[in-house]
Amino acid sequence: MKSQFFSNAKGLLIDLDGVVYVGDGAIDGAVETINWLKEKSLACRFLTNTTTRSLASLHSKLTDLGLPIDKQEIISATYAGVLYLRQQDRPSCHLLLTDDPKDDFAEFPQNDINPNYVVVGDLAKSWSYDVMNRAFNMILGGAKLLALHKGRYWQTEEGLRMDIGAFVAGLEYVTGQEAVVIGKPSPQFFRMALSDMGLTADEVVMIGDDIHNDIGGAQKAGHKAVLVRTGKYRSDLVEQSGIEPDLVIDSIAQLPDYL
Amino acid sequence: MKSQFFSNAKGLLIDLDGVVYVGDGAIDGAVETINWLKEKSLACRFLTNTTTRSLASLHSKLTDLGLPIDKQEIISATYAGVLYLRQQDRPSCHLLLTDDPKDDFAEFPQNDINPNYVVVGDLAKSWSYDVMNRAFNMILGGAKLLALHKGRYWQTEEGLRMDIGAFVAGLEYVTGQEAVVIGKPSPQFFRMALSDMGLTADEVVMIGDDIHNDIGGAQKAGHKAVLVRTGKYRSDLVEQSGIEPDLVIDSIAQLPDYL
Repeated sequence: MKSQFFSNAKGLLIDLDGVVYVGDGAIDGAVETINWLKEKSLACRFLTNTTTRSLASLHSKLTDLGLPIDKQEIISATYAGVLYLRQQDRPSCHLLLTDDPKDDFAEFPQNDINPNYVVVGDLAKSWSYDVMNRAFNMILGGAKLLALHKGRYWQTEEGLRMDIGAFVAGLEYVTGQEAVVIGKPSPQFFRMALSDMGLTADEVVMIGDDIHNDIGGAQKAGHKAVLVRTGKYRSDLVEQSGIEPDLVIDSIAQLPDYL
Repeated sequence: MKSQFFSNAKGLLIDLDGVVYVGDGAIDGAVETINWLKEKSLACRFLTNTTTRSLASLHSKLTDLGLPIDKQEIISATYAGVLYLRQQDRPSCHLLLTDDPKDDFAEFPQNDINPNYVVVGDLAKSWSYDVMNRAFNMILGGAKLLALHKGRYWQTEEGLRMDIGAFVAGLEYVTGQEAVVIGKPSPQFFRMALSDMGLTADEVVMIGDDIHNDIGGAQKAGHKAVLVRTGKYRSDLVEQSGIEPDLVIDSIAQLPDYL
């Protein structure tokens, strides 16, 4: 059972959280599928909006889960944020991040009074009125709002959890300033991965569990996109979205059936 | 120096915070102006989006500041939220409010698991990831999002502070559900005040310091609107708004010069 649109595929973009692992466990068959892809010499990049870990720490987690993924194959929103800031003129930052991913931003001066950039990532339990109010005042004072992503929710073992898009959208509303959004579904993020692979959008298929960020984002960037029914997948939310995946499969383990 | 558009005025809608008081002090001349308005038998209603106090506690604060305002003359977003819920079919509520304004909602059953309504007001220092995540899951589970207002910021003695609109906009974004917004700038809120005064919109002028909520909202509801340069007034934010007040005066103390 080969799907027509895979005939041209030379590479894959694969989401991490919800597609190859959930919480602290690999998805059944993910390890085997990734090994199989590598045997077939298909180029792979793992595109993640996760901002809770530095690149080094994320790679270490994947290795611990037994997932055969190289560090250079990971393209995280956090690291893409670093690449974005390198292109700016002497950026100073106020980082809404936990300590581990802050490491990735060590090359930029931190300024917690009047920075050029307020960088929004995941603060876990540390979100508070004061955190938001300080960011609000920095942005009113001239800082740009840089969102590492603008996700709505993600899947955990206990159910759906609200994502940082709530705080990004909130800051946009109160300041009247639209954020620069780095991670999925930003087309630049997909282009960054393509450029790294040396392939064109029609040669690369996206695999994800997030109907907006993975499927909608990839399709807008010119990719075909496959939705998996693991992770944050929920049929009612897919229907509400108005986005139509090119293919829906039960999990990444089914991928070899279609290639 | 009489302004043309006041010639028809039989009543006034006056914002409280930033117009008649800031923090714990009455604005200079506010007491005298309100006394003067009452001597002239102009109908007054005080329209406030404040959700940090019950109606009783708000009236007590105004009295302590020496402001000659009757409890029946105050129309608060909190109380308007109560009136809205009374029109719904057996509403159960999860209240994002501090204890004092919760008193106003005592007649409705509280349900902190699967309520019909998530009511968003000011939680002061108690905003957190968990508060937002619980509200997010309740709304995904079927609850309606009822925002007592959607203000962007307000003025304090220490400067501008971010308002609850950040959290309302954030919940709207992650849930995909538009909030029912009760307070200013909702046209229904202005109509509620008019109905209480028995006057028409062209007979009543709004006085406020918030370019969006007071001036934009009142104009959309058919009122002329006067912006005061006290409270949260900032000329740059007025310019950015694209909203043009019918008149701008230094403070409420100048009002008798124009009537």
